[in-house]
Amino acid sequence: MKEQTMSERYQRGLEKLREIDGAAGERVLASLEDIAPDFGRYLIEFPFGDIYSRPGLDLRSREIAVVAALTAMGNAAPQLKVHIHAALNVGVTRTEVIETIMQMAVYAGFPAALNGLAAAREVFAQENEAAVTDGLARPRE
Amino acid sequence: MKEQTMSERYQRGLEKLREIDGAAGERVLASLEDIAPDFGRYLIEFPFGDIYSRPGLDLRSREIAVVAALTAMGNAAPQLKVHIHAALNVGVTRTEVIETIMQMAVYAGFPAALNGLAAAREVFAQENEAAVTDGLARPRE
Amino acid sequence: MKEQTMSERYQRGLEKLREIDGAAGERVLASLEDIAPDFGRYLIEFPFGDIYSRPGLDLRSREIAVVAALTAMGNAAPQLKVHIHAALNVGVTRTEVIETIMQMAVYAGFPAALNGLAAAREVFAQENEAAVTDGLARPRE
Amino acid sequence: MKEQTMSERYQRGLEKLREIDGAAGERVLASLEDIAPDFGRYLIEFPFGDIYSRPGLDLRSREIAVVAALTAMGNAAPQLKVHIHAALNVGVTRTEVIETIMQMAVYAGFPAALNGLAAAREVFAQENEAAVTDGLARPRE
Amino acid sequence: MKEQTMSERYQRGLEKLREIDGAAGERVLASLEDIAPDFGRYLIEFPFGDIYSRPGLDLRSREIAVVAALTAMGNAAPQLKVHIHAALNVGVTRTEVIETIMQMAVYAGFPAALNGLAAAREVFAQENEAAVTDGLARPRE
Amino acid sequence: MKEQTMSERYQRGLEKLREIDGAAGERVLASLEDIAPDFGRYLIEFPFGDIYSRPGLDLRSREIAVVAALTAMGNAAPQLKVHIHAALNVGVTRTEVIETIMQMAVYAGFPAALNGLAAAREVFAQENEAAVTDGLARPRE
Repeated sequence: MKEQTMSERYQRGLEKLREIDGAAGERVLASLEDIAPDFGRYLIEFPFGDIYSRPGLDLRSREIAVVAALTAMGNAAPQLKVHIHAALNVGVTRTEVIETIMQMAVYAGFPAALNGLAAAREVFAQENEAAVTDGLARPRE
Repeated sequence: MKEQTMSERYQRGLEKLREIDGAAGERVLASLEDIAPDFGRYLIEFPFGDIYSRPGLDLRSREIAVVAALTAMGNAAPQLKVHIHAALNVGVTRTEVIETIMQMAVYAGFPAALNGLAAAREVFAQENEAAVTDGLARPRE
Repeated sequence: MKEQTMSERYQRGLEKLREIDGAAGERVLASLEDIAPDFGRYLIEFPFGDIYSRPGLDLRSREIAVVAALTAMGNAAPQLKVHIHAALNVGVTRTEVIETIMQMAVYAGFPAALNGLAAAREVFAQENEAAVTDGLARPRE
Repeated sequence: MKEQTMSERYQRGLEKLREIDGAAGERVLASLEDIAPDFGRYLIEFPFGDIYSRPGLDLRSREIAVVAALTAMGNAAPQLKVHIHAALNVGVTRTEVIETIMQMAVYAGFPAALNGLAAAREVFAQENEAAVTDGLARPRE
Repeated sequence: MKEQTMSERYQRGLEKLREIDGAAGERVLASLEDIAPDFGRYLIEFPFGDIYSRPGLDLRSREIAVVAALTAMGNAAPQLKVHIHAALNVGVTRTEVIETIMQMAVYAGFPAALNGLAAAREVFAQENEAAVTDGLARPRE
Repeated sequence: MKEQTMSERYQRGLEKLREIDGAAGERVLASLEDIAPDFGRYLIEFPFGDIYSRPGLDLRSREIAVVAALTAMGNAAPQLKVHIHAALNVGVTRTEVIETIMQMAVYAGFPAALNGLAAAREVFAQENEAAVTDGLARPRE
């Protein structure tokens, strides 16, 4: 990786990506390495190094906004799941995720909301399993 | 209007609509009266009487979600403006509106964000003018 | 225009276009003449000469399908208006147009339906004016 | 379930859902029970209790409109299949379903129509199998 | 197949389809035979017999345009893969495919580009395997 | 403007923006200054400093890709016009712009292509007027 990419902006973005997306973010980066490694760098630098690092809107609100938008657009299921997980990571509750998705029935129709709820069910189940594996008493509420 | 429409659900929806959308909401209802009055009733009952009245997600977060979704979808400019106004009404700051819209550049592209920012500029200007008319010292921050 | 374009398929399409879209169809063709005349020919040949000329689905149902789709997509306002007019031309009632658009609130969200209703209001008003000009007692129901 | 949900509107919606969607509708409701049971109630009340129960547009036309819209939007495959099945349930013929989907090539492009036809092939095959299981001589035309 | 379909236009389209899409195009046609054979004919005649056969834009540019559009729309994954393959068939390099898809991050968001890159990875892998099967030293660059 | 924004990346992006978009790009930047100046910086840095500055795909192909995508998406008319102009700026001919837009009828439907052609007509007319003003004998072909 070129020196340029190890800039402050890249470092800040990488930390933000890990804080928000956790292991899912790392998997996205790994999947880009053989086909478009520069795109992995841009993904760290612009969305995470620039946008998510801005003050002015807390991370919880940012993830609620992203879950809402991806549910409404309805054409990016893998990313919606990553961001439902991310929302939980930054402190959005499961109830708030469900409410955000349900609200999209009003703005993008019932099919969009139903498919968003199906994505949430899948992410919650994965979290429950991981909680069991980790010996945690119970998953996040 | 039929008795049914004056149900508790309708009353609750109408109050919620006024709280969130203010005069813009009334204008939407008025515009439906000659062409689809029942649709005005549904608009009050389902989005406002049912969804916005739910606990589990505060109104600020709901409006951030809607501004995000409508910016990302990019095909509902009049409603985006109504909801930028609504977001300000329920306590979202101008800065937070701008941050929400800017974030959509990552998820729906720069054109969607640029058009969202243009809508925000227009709503903020209307608010500034209204503030002057009302003799207020300065518009909301 | 080349001989090829005056084929049976082209003739059939042109008649179908006139039957369905009336003057609005002619205006679309005229608008293409200076910039993409071949596209005007394709528009006659494929949508009208091929698709609308097929048996198996009556014209009323075809226009209900198109009004529904364009309302739901929400990014083709001029064509939605042409097809609301076309729907009326082939015997869909105003009530049926309104019902079709309202139904889209369920599948594409309230903003899509609201913008569809606004388009219908505009088309109905144009028809009312034209009816007055033509000395008709009253517009279509 | 709370008393409120057993209202006349809910009862009417549930009957309409069963008439239109049959077992597929029940499956959607069941899938919501663990994650968003209230959303199941809204789904019964607004789309089915309010919209589908309206006079002014027959159920056949409503389902043609929905198959058209979901084909054109192209981002709700599970719901498109449910509604192709629903269309057949309320008397739309297989030929009419195919014609509706083919027409969307004109308004939303060939990929949307191709993916809609693939959904129809799948639903028709399921129906054929079910017809064999039920000892019926042949599937619906 | 009716005589009409063996017209010059159909022949030209079929040759163009084979030149551009190769075996993938034949598979699409075959998949339509049982459910909508006429749609297979339209697919040959209008997109390939009319549009792709036009002078004025070379096939490489046409396929770059299609890969861009399908990546941006994000709701037609099977067709995107067919056209990534088609782009390679008409001389677009793998690097150019990747650059085209990456550029869509700017216009349709990072999720659209990520899903486009995933489609490209799949098509490239299929090509690599086919190259091995065919005894070729190495896949296309 | 902060020192950081005058980085090599920003300089490279600004030059690229001017090369591609000309005065239209400057106007977009100016429109952001009062409402979201940082977004203007991101617009220069990521799309132009990063993406458009990459080797691997020539500018002509990049602009054909963008005109195709924005025509197909159909929800970003101002940006489509900027990029039709940009395409002409980097050497795409008017004929190639028209062919690119017409091709979108196949992938996103006739309404998307018709609205794209209307945008092109407008941009060409602006260019013709500017050519007259500049004393040029005739506009670009």
